[in-house]
Amino acid sequence: MKIFTIDANDKNCAARTGTLLLPHGPVSTPAFMPVGTAGTVKAVDHDQLHQMGYRLILANTYHLFLRPGMDTIGSFGGLHTFSSWNHNILTDSGGYQIFSLAPFRKITDEGASFRSHLDGSRHLLTPERTVDIQVTIGSDIQMVLDVCTGPEIDHRAALEALTTTTTWAARARRRWEEQQEESGYAGALFGIVQGNFFPDLRTQAVQRTEELDFPGLALGGLSVGEPFSTYCDILAHTAPQLPREKPRYVMGIGTPEYILAAIEQGIDMFDCVFPTRAARTGTLFTTDGRINFKSARYARTMDSPDRQIDSFGGRQYSLGYLRHLTKSNEILGCMLAAQHNLRFMKWLVDQSARAIREGTFLSFKKDFLERYTEGTKAAREASSP
Amino acid sequence: MKIFTIDANDKNCAARTGTLLLPHGPVSTPAFMPVGTAGTVKAVDHDQLHQMGYRLILANTYHLFLRPGMDTIGSFGGLHTFSSWNHNILTDSGGYQIFSLAPFRKITDEGASFRSHLDGSRHLLTPERTVDIQVTIGSDIQMVLDVCTGPEIDHRAALEALTTTTTWAARARRRWEEQQEESGYAGALFGIVQGNFFPDLRTQAVQRTEELDFPGLALGGLSVGEPFSTYCDILAHTAPQLPREKPRYVMGIGTPEYILAAIEQGIDMFDCVFPTRAARTGTLFTTDGRINFKSARYARTMDSPDRQIDSFGGRQYSLGYLRHLTKSNEILGCMLAAQHNLRFMKWLVDQSARAIREGTFLSFKKDFLERYTEGTKAAREASSP
Repeated sequence: MKIFTIDANDKNCAARTGTLLLPHGPVSTPAFMPVGTAGTVKAVDHDQLHQMGYRLILANTYHLFLRPGMDTIGSFGGLHTFSSWNHNILTDSGGYQIFSLAPFRKITDEGASFRSHLDGSRHLLTPERTVDIQVTIGSDIQMVLDVCTGPEIDHRAALEALTTTTTWAARARRRWEEQQEESGYAGALFGIVQGNFFPDLRTQAVQRTEELDFPGLALGGLSVGEPFSTYCDILAHTAPQLPREKPRYVMGIGTPEYILAAIEQGIDMFDCVFPTRAARTGTLFTTDGRINFKSARYARTMDSPDRQIDSFGGRQYSLGYLRHLTKSNEILGCMLAAQHNLRFMKWLVDQSARAIREGTFLSFKKDFLERYTEGTKAAREASSP
Repeated sequence: MKIFTIDANDKNCAARTGTLLLPHGPVSTPAFMPVGTAGTVKAVDHDQLHQMGYRLILANTYHLFLRPGMDTIGSFGGLHTFSSWNHNILTDSGGYQIFSLAPFRKITDEGASFRSHLDGSRHLLTPERTVDIQVTIGSDIQMVLDVCTGPEIDHRAALEALTTTTTWAARARRRWEEQQEESGYAGALFGIVQGNFFPDLRTQAVQRTEELDFPGLALGGLSVGEPFSTYCDILAHTAPQLPREKPRYVMGIGTPEYILAAIEQGIDMFDCVFPTRAARTGTLFTTDGRINFKSARYARTMDSPDRQIDSFGGRQYSLGYLRHLTKSNEILGCMLAAQHNLRFMKWLVDQSARAIREGTFLSFKKDFLERYTEGTKAAREASSP
């Protein structure tokens, strides 16, 4: 299954633009995917996502499996119909949520058993069952069940997790093929490269995952608490080993620094809750840096959040009003801030694509980050007492 | 100041349609006004309000006075600019919030002193200051400061409150005239008819308020906990005494039963938080009755909330998805339910206007309420265990 074409390569680095060819339409890359955990991107309605240009969002298998449950989603014929989102959906496998959310998790050869963080009920996800669940969801891209690890574990434990992940990946791939034949499932399955922060294990993970010939590959287990330089090192070590003709996805990154570093290394896809979560607590990404718009210094600011970005799709809302809404716990504050941050992320990947086509990605990245970093520092200093 | 034209009178009752001529454009009546307490209708963005056809929303002087404060709103040149809402705004005077929210309130001849429910700070609102504040807000319609009373007080206390209200009304009217001359303020000022649930006091209140010749009149102190029949009695007693040529406003009503009873008595305007507040806790108004959409019976319902109403401006969302969102505490659940309820209210007043023009308001009201009441009862029985 081939789902990706490369449209342009930057002359001066590994960055590229491309197109994902998915059941619910084409998606341009580099692509940031807003996270719609429970089948909704928090505080943003589908029409706005569409207007912003998003054609691929992420949903969480773990959350949907627990609530509303597969019987309900199945009765609607999948998540697209259930949620009335007519574009593409990528689902993660639940591995990361079991690692980060579920109490009493236990990894065995068979699969991952855990208790629900909602009601304590006990569940077992196997690699095969995870594929079946994502088929019921109707995911345009689904992910294999993997074992996530944090930066604190040793080489031996990391190897063990990697071995389990690749064994599970082979089982998931078989089940995916069966589903294509049995149910006509048309979505893609991506492998996940683990290996923690050990370069030799990352190399081994790429080889063992690539042997299974997935339509796309993800790097998992990054942005889990490691320093930025460690992230960059592992990225620079691993990304060049990934096959060039397949889409490459770094899971769970959502700040400009992380995303631009990934694009430079030839990564095509990323997702993170951070832009929408940060919006709800008062943080905006702007081309002049990251700001805390709850700061008193914005109380009478009549400007929009960003001079370069159409934050609200043609309507002007002032930072002063946005501050008032968030200080007053008004839902419109979450709605507007989330909208701005998602429009910022779309602007960032679109500008990256333009620069790649022109062969100027490295200078775009440098110029953007200089202004962004200085602005972030200045805003922090101005807001501190 | 004349701000109202009557466009049609129903042949068989006192109901009428008309047009309010206000600084930010004309508004058709009967008009339901969504409540934007802090300068935002909760969980609904301005573009959606506009698309729904709303041209007049209500904001609360009490809340805006406390947060963000008049200095901030004044520095933006008023609430329209601050909030980017380009249509009309009616502000209440704060009297009702002082009555219902503020601790340690005290009514004297001078005005109403109270402590903020936010930070305990002490404030005094006089009739004159309340006018000035609403001028700073830039209200298209502002209300006089009044003394609200509940259904539990006796005739003597009700007369005392009424006397204070009408004395304050005369002072507010003088200040409003000064503001027209001094600052060129173009908004209207409405008087408020109090008198509790004593018909003789309501009659007296109409006379004493009408002597001051406001551009419009409101009935206050209704829907404060009294039985529906008491509300109807006071309405039937008082409404016919109001001058026909002026707009008439019943404050704080927001259910179909109360609104249709008011329209029948020739009332033109109403407001209430109920449609948006109820939406956030799982209640939808539909032409088939009021339903609790969090009920398990809707988990797999693929229908939209209403067969007759375009709930979401052209997009279809199922009741099953709406239930899932609200059970999962997702903001989109509040957004969609509030949108539906406001579209329902707009549908209700628009259908009323159509029926009035055709002289069939009484039969429209009867047919609608029969179906609505039966549907509400059936939904309640089906949802109870």
